[in-house]
Amino acid sequence: MTQNTKGPLSGILVIDLSRILAGPYCTLLMAEMGARVIKVEPPKGGDDARAYGPFVNGKSTYFASVNRGKESIALDLKADGDRKIFEKLLEKADVVVENFRPGTMEKLGYGWETLHAKYPQLIYASASGFGHTGPNSKDPAYDMVMQGQGGIMSITGNEGQPPSRVGMSIGDIGAGLYTAVAVNAAIVHRLKTGESTKVDIAMFDCQLALLENAIMRYTVEKEIPGPLGARHPTITPFEAFATSDGSMIIAAGNDSLFVKMCEALGRSDMATDPAYKSNALRQKSQKKLKDEIESVLKTNTTDHWIAVVSKGGVPCGPINNIAQAIEHPQVAARNMLVDVPDGSGGTLKLAGNPLKMSAFPDPTTRRPAPDLDSDRDTILSYLGG
Amino acid sequence: MTQNTKGPLSGILVIDLSRILAGPYCTLLMAEMGARVIKVEPPKGGDDARAYGPFVNGKSTYFASVNRGKESIALDLKADGDRKIFEKLLEKADVVVENFRPGTMEKLGYGWETLHAKYPQLIYASASGFGHTGPNSKDPAYDMVMQGQGGIMSITGNEGQPPSRVGMSIGDIGAGLYTAVAVNAAIVHRLKTGESTKVDIAMFDCQLALLENAIMRYTVEKEIPGPLGARHPTITPFEAFATSDGSMIIAAGNDSLFVKMCEALGRSDMATDPAYKSNALRQKSQKKLKDEIESVLKTNTTDHWIAVVSKGGVPCGPINNIAQAIEHPQVAARNMLVDVPDGSGGTLKLAGNPLKMSAFPDPTTRRPAPDLDSDRDTILSYLGG
Repeated sequence: MTQNTKGPLSGILVIDLSRILAGPYCTLLMAEMGARVIKVEPPKGGDDARAYGPFVNGKSTYFASVNRGKESIALDLKADGDRKIFEKLLEKADVVVENFRPGTMEKLGYGWETLHAKYPQLIYASASGFGHTGPNSKDPAYDMVMQGQGGIMSITGNEGQPPSRVGMSIGDIGAGLYTAVAVNAAIVHRLKTGESTKVDIAMFDCQLALLENAIMRYTVEKEIPGPLGARHPTITPFEAFATSDGSMIIAAGNDSLFVKMCEALGRSDMATDPAYKSNALRQKSQKKLKDEIESVLKTNTTDHWIAVVSKGGVPCGPINNIAQAIEHPQVAARNMLVDVPDGSGGTLKLAGNPLKMSAFPDPTTRRPAPDLDSDRDTILSYLGG
Repeated sequence: MTQNTKGPLSGILVIDLSRILAGPYCTLLMAEMGARVIKVEPPKGGDDARAYGPFVNGKSTYFASVNRGKESIALDLKADGDRKIFEKLLEKADVVVENFRPGTMEKLGYGWETLHAKYPQLIYASASGFGHTGPNSKDPAYDMVMQGQGGIMSITGNEGQPPSRVGMSIGDIGAGLYTAVAVNAAIVHRLKTGESTKVDIAMFDCQLALLENAIMRYTVEKEIPGPLGARHPTITPFEAFATSDGSMIIAAGNDSLFVKMCEALGRSDMATDPAYKSNALRQKSQKKLKDEIESVLKTNTTDHWIAVVSKGGVPCGPINNIAQAIEHPQVAARNMLVDVPDGSGGTLKLAGNPLKMSAFPDPTTRRPAPDLDSDRDTILSYLGG
């Protein structure tokens, strides 16, 4: 059993040295797209994430969530015999992915120049904190450090409150996504020209690339953006509003949607108010407009107003918690919660694959995440060893 | 002048019908990787984002930030003559990208089945709110609505405070990233097999895929995750701490880093405290541990403690605002702020390309975003029209 999903990357072999989240998220996406992903883990304990909770029957579900569908072999990259096995893998591989601190691969004798000379077909992808160049290249980095340094925390959360992190690991998962974009592009390039390349992704660079709009606002307007709670920085009204029993989001992104919203709320007078005539004017009167809208919304419930405002043709919606989000009808309809055996007779429910393609099935189950070294025999026999 | 960047997607032609952010962010990444991206815009006003501020000399810098390096032609897809031009483009194209509401392309006579029959080489990529299948497929959607429905807002921000949005448009930019991953994989598949595919990305699906860890925590532990401020949900200590003049992040992600942190803070006693012996135990005593750490940190400044804790080998850092983030030495060293002409004699500073590859140059400037229809002549002459 080598892989469980057919996809656009079927036939691609990925050797995965990466640990914890950024690299493994990249190779998770590749496995979901049909690549064969072989995790090469240190014999003592394997991927650090195997120690992260919550646990089911002693196994990390954190690890399971990003390593399902992969294979595992334990190799000591400092021991001669294991290095020979590793090198046989590299000979057959299309891509090697690592997220060590820069310099680690060179110390092992597996830096890009060495590998490129010996395995010209091999694409080398690195995801590190600050990248393989620059004065801070070797600074250690974890998701939270990147969220702090890259600026995203400074624009997230409520004004006047302690700093807030994005509730998921955008530092790691962001870098994993950009790495997957780049690796796939590097495969395209190799298929077209025969040339392999090194991909050098920095979590920090990715944070800046994700900020895009905030950077432009700062460099153009010279004002440092701050946290805005639940409001869009440049579009109004596009934010969360209080109702009688909670809150809801209304996103009236242009003039015609604004008019429709006013009508749905029974406030056509606001639609013709000169103070609200354009987005620029609404932006200036944001607080006053919010008060006017909430004075209507607070007369009834979130459910009521979502029905009314939706019917009026204006994008709007609830603020779901995780339980509510996965009960959304689209989740079942689009197979966005898949069953993955937990390796102990039970089943985990994990986020599905958002990369839907007409040419490929989207199975409702996945192979479990591998136990450490569980695919050694299959892999060695594949290598003819 | 067709494109300004050589890259792994050089030679790939993308016809881009997308507007505002999710689709354009995907095609921005493709342009950065060397693809030729031709925006096909409605003659009246073009891409809606052209009306979003801030403006420089009457031009939208919001538009500029995600459309640099692309070309523009204005075509009315309901007019016969313009449809002929559009169809000539599709004949030559590798990929068409759109982010209309599902059904729009079918109404225009350009649905996937039709296009696939007529242009078998063409990959079709759609980024929509809820995807092209399922009962809510046609619900309207904007970034903020997706952030609310997908659950990310429920885990972002401080406990007991009003809901908080992620400070950037993770709904749109997340979908743009997954679309880019999928399109590149679809190109790989076509190069290997000759078969084209339809890519159907839903912003909502992407929100679930980004949450991964939170979904697993809920399905395993049956507890609904809430906002955690600036703290990691399952790793301790991995959070923001108050200092004498602000706050800083310490990310001691494993036992050995925890010991190093205690030593750096002059509190070796904490390293041997049985209550802090494992991550699971530290997680249980998170509040007490935080108080102990802050009682040390509050005796000196953020700068002081970052120097001390870094020297101790523990990942840590400041919480930078946008101005501080772009002054980080890695930004200049890795060309993460590029100059882009604003089309009026000035220059915009925009986030650079995080997709660094050894085989390709990473120029310090980019072609400006196109004015509406500004590349008509070049494009028509390319079509031989």
